[in-house]
Amino acid sequence: MDERVREHAEVLVDWSARVEAGDDVVVSVAEGAHELGVAVAEALGERGATVTTVYGSSELSRAYLKGVEAGTDGDVDAGDFDSDPAVDRALFEAADAYLRIGGGRNTTATADVDRSTRQAYAKARQGVREARMDTDWVSTVHPTRSLAQQAGMAYEEYRDFVYDAVLRDWESLADEMARLKAILDAGEEVRIVTERDGAPDTDVTMSIAGRTAVNSAASVAYDSHNLPSGEVFTAPYDTAGEVFFDVPMTIDATRVRNVHLVFEDGAVVDFAAGAGEDALASVLDTDPGARRLGELGVGMNRGIDRVTDSILFDEKMGDTVHLAVGRAYDACLPDGESGTESAVHVDMIADVSERSSVTVDGEVVQRDGVFRWEDGFER
Amino acid sequence: MDERVREHAEVLVDWSARVEAGDDVVVSVAEGAHELGVAVAEALGERGATVTTVYGSSELSRAYLKGVEAGTDGDVDAGDFDSDPAVDRALFEAADAYLRIGGGRNTTATADVDRSTRQAYAKARQGVREARMDTDWVSTVHPTRSLAQQAGMAYEEYRDFVYDAVLRDWESLADEMARLKAILDAGEEVRIVTERDGAPDTDVTMSIAGRTAVNSAASVAYDSHNLPSGEVFTAPYDTAGEVFFDVPMTIDATRVRNVHLVFEDGAVVDFAAGAGEDALASVLDTDPGARRLGELGVGMNRGIDRVTDSILFDEKMGDTVHLAVGRAYDACLPDGESGTESAVHVDMIADVSERSSVTVDGEVVQRDGVFRWEDGFER
Repeated sequence: MDERVREHAEVLVDWSARVEAGDDVVVSVAEGAHELGVAVAEALGERGATVTTVYGSSELSRAYLKGVEAGTDGDVDAGDFDSDPAVDRALFEAADAYLRIGGGRNTTATADVDRSTRQAYAKARQGVREARMDTDWVSTVHPTRSLAQQAGMAYEEYRDFVYDAVLRDWESLADEMARLKAILDAGEEVRIVTERDGAPDTDVTMSIAGRTAVNSAASVAYDSHNLPSGEVFTAPYDTAGEVFFDVPMTIDATRVRNVHLVFEDGAVVDFAAGAGEDALASVLDTDPGARRLGELGVGMNRGIDRVTDSILFDEKMGDTVHLAVGRAYDACLPDGESGTESAVHVDMIADVSERSSVTVDGEVVQRDGVFRWEDGFER
Repeated sequence: MDERVREHAEVLVDWSARVEAGDDVVVSVAEGAHELGVAVAEALGERGATVTTVYGSSELSRAYLKGVEAGTDGDVDAGDFDSDPAVDRALFEAADAYLRIGGGRNTTATADVDRSTRQAYAKARQGVREARMDTDWVSTVHPTRSLAQQAGMAYEEYRDFVYDAVLRDWESLADEMARLKAILDAGEEVRIVTERDGAPDTDVTMSIAGRTAVNSAASVAYDSHNLPSGEVFTAPYDTAGEVFFDVPMTIDATRVRNVHLVFEDGAVVDFAAGAGEDALASVLDTDPGARRLGELGVGMNRGIDRVTDSILFDEKMGDTVHLAVGRAYDACLPDGESGTESAVHVDMIADVSERSSVTVDGEVVQRDGVFRWEDGFER
């Protein structure tokens, strides 16, 4: 076994999930994630935890949903599923931690299941999802050929990429991210400016007054549930100006490139995309919240240095910022206050490594990819 | 997908487990059993059941137990495991049915885990095992290359073998087995006689008075939990005489051949084996019950026509009988009465297809592999 698989397991169990002796841990292993599953099982045994392993197979999910379609008139709604599935609920209610190890053999394994069937299933599973979120859950991926293919990379190359992203000095990154969190927590207005040849410029401002930033350091101890992580995010409002997102993305299986959004009074009033504009329009038309920002995130994981068409990695890429239209995270909101509400949350990413600045209350925090506290920062 | 995989899934879900709409079903999928897992998930979706899939990986089990060994002083006892693991207990208590799909990639995947560790784990898991047994559980296997290898067969050949064994007319076999069950339920004494060239003869009698035979027809509706099945078994006592078992077997990873047992007053008083005699001796010396019979079984699945070194198949082979030393099954005993008690239950199989007879209360039931109710039976 590649020693990095073992290290990945240790980061997941110790840094991310903070597993202790006696914890009851549910591990979900995707079809291609056997090897990391083995390393995680060994680490959990060593820590004195109890482990139950779930098989997170997309092909089994597809088969089950196809079976439901065949067993009904084919017109599936949420009522065709048990909204309180006893086993899954019991499983997560009894669990202290849930470790989801993604990494399938085909990222489009459920492509031929009707969208309405998938949505009905997701709706019926809301209670199970909540029980799962109540555990110390962490989501990671084992590098598979299928994910390498999605990233447009060779397998060996993709493995190096994943381990560079996952095997960080998390303690030190958490300390660095704490600096940005402190600035955002105290700040009232963020302005992002970029200049580019042959593309619209970005110049956008948003309010963050009263909002709390999350130091997403890949650990439940930081309210962070992704491995890798490495971003600081908050919930902005009152957005005005325009943004150009130059990092490609996939929305509902459609490739979307070069998104341009124009905001007035907090809402998107105009938009365009170099590719996939229909998919973008469909997102923005979901509900009123889908035209407002739910998130401003600053990617600070410099182990991630390229786009791989996986939001788990892309949004944490060093020297990028991302804005999400749609739902805001509760963790960023004052108690009892609600932020943007929406059925969607779609992240869009902009490169800020060159000819860019991120400013909080008039003070530049990051210029051309260099933070205020780093060598080479120009005021 | 081979159509037989789908048929296997349907037999498992409908005939064996009797799954109905609304049932909560736990499916355990071994490392090599993905394909049958897919077919079972589809069938469960079609029936309107809810499914939770557990990953039954021997390599993960090995890794976990190796981790426990590393995390303790290496001298593992049952106290090193949680004797009431919350997740697994909750899982099985909430489940209506449990479908275990075996079929790994290496039948010796846990060979380097200390035997004492495995025993300690099994002991700590007693409660979980009982919760699992309280569901409508069924155990089957998907044909894998690893199992083909254990059987000494080519992969294609082994698949044909498994589907011949599994895809029976179970209704009709159950009816036929009911005839033998009626004879055994009413009978008081069984005598088995075989004559062979160059090998000890078998001539053994045992009492079955007051005992109830199980018609093991591969369905929870018949108190039968294996697919394939196809045997009628009961719990004999007061055994006398000698038996020669000509079907090879594996006891605790040791190949055992040509076992010869001599019984007096219900207990083994002398024994020999052509190979693996030490392993046999170790079984017989486990406890006093290990020298007494716990089971007499008559194999009636003629889809199984050869030995594959897997007790799931071997003991159901048509034209064989098997005797187990050790523990008797409660289902065969009158309420409140106990049969042979022992920590072991080891089946040994004899071919009765030639120069043999099985007699109940002086009347021949099967001669040379032909039952009383079959064409060609000679009284």
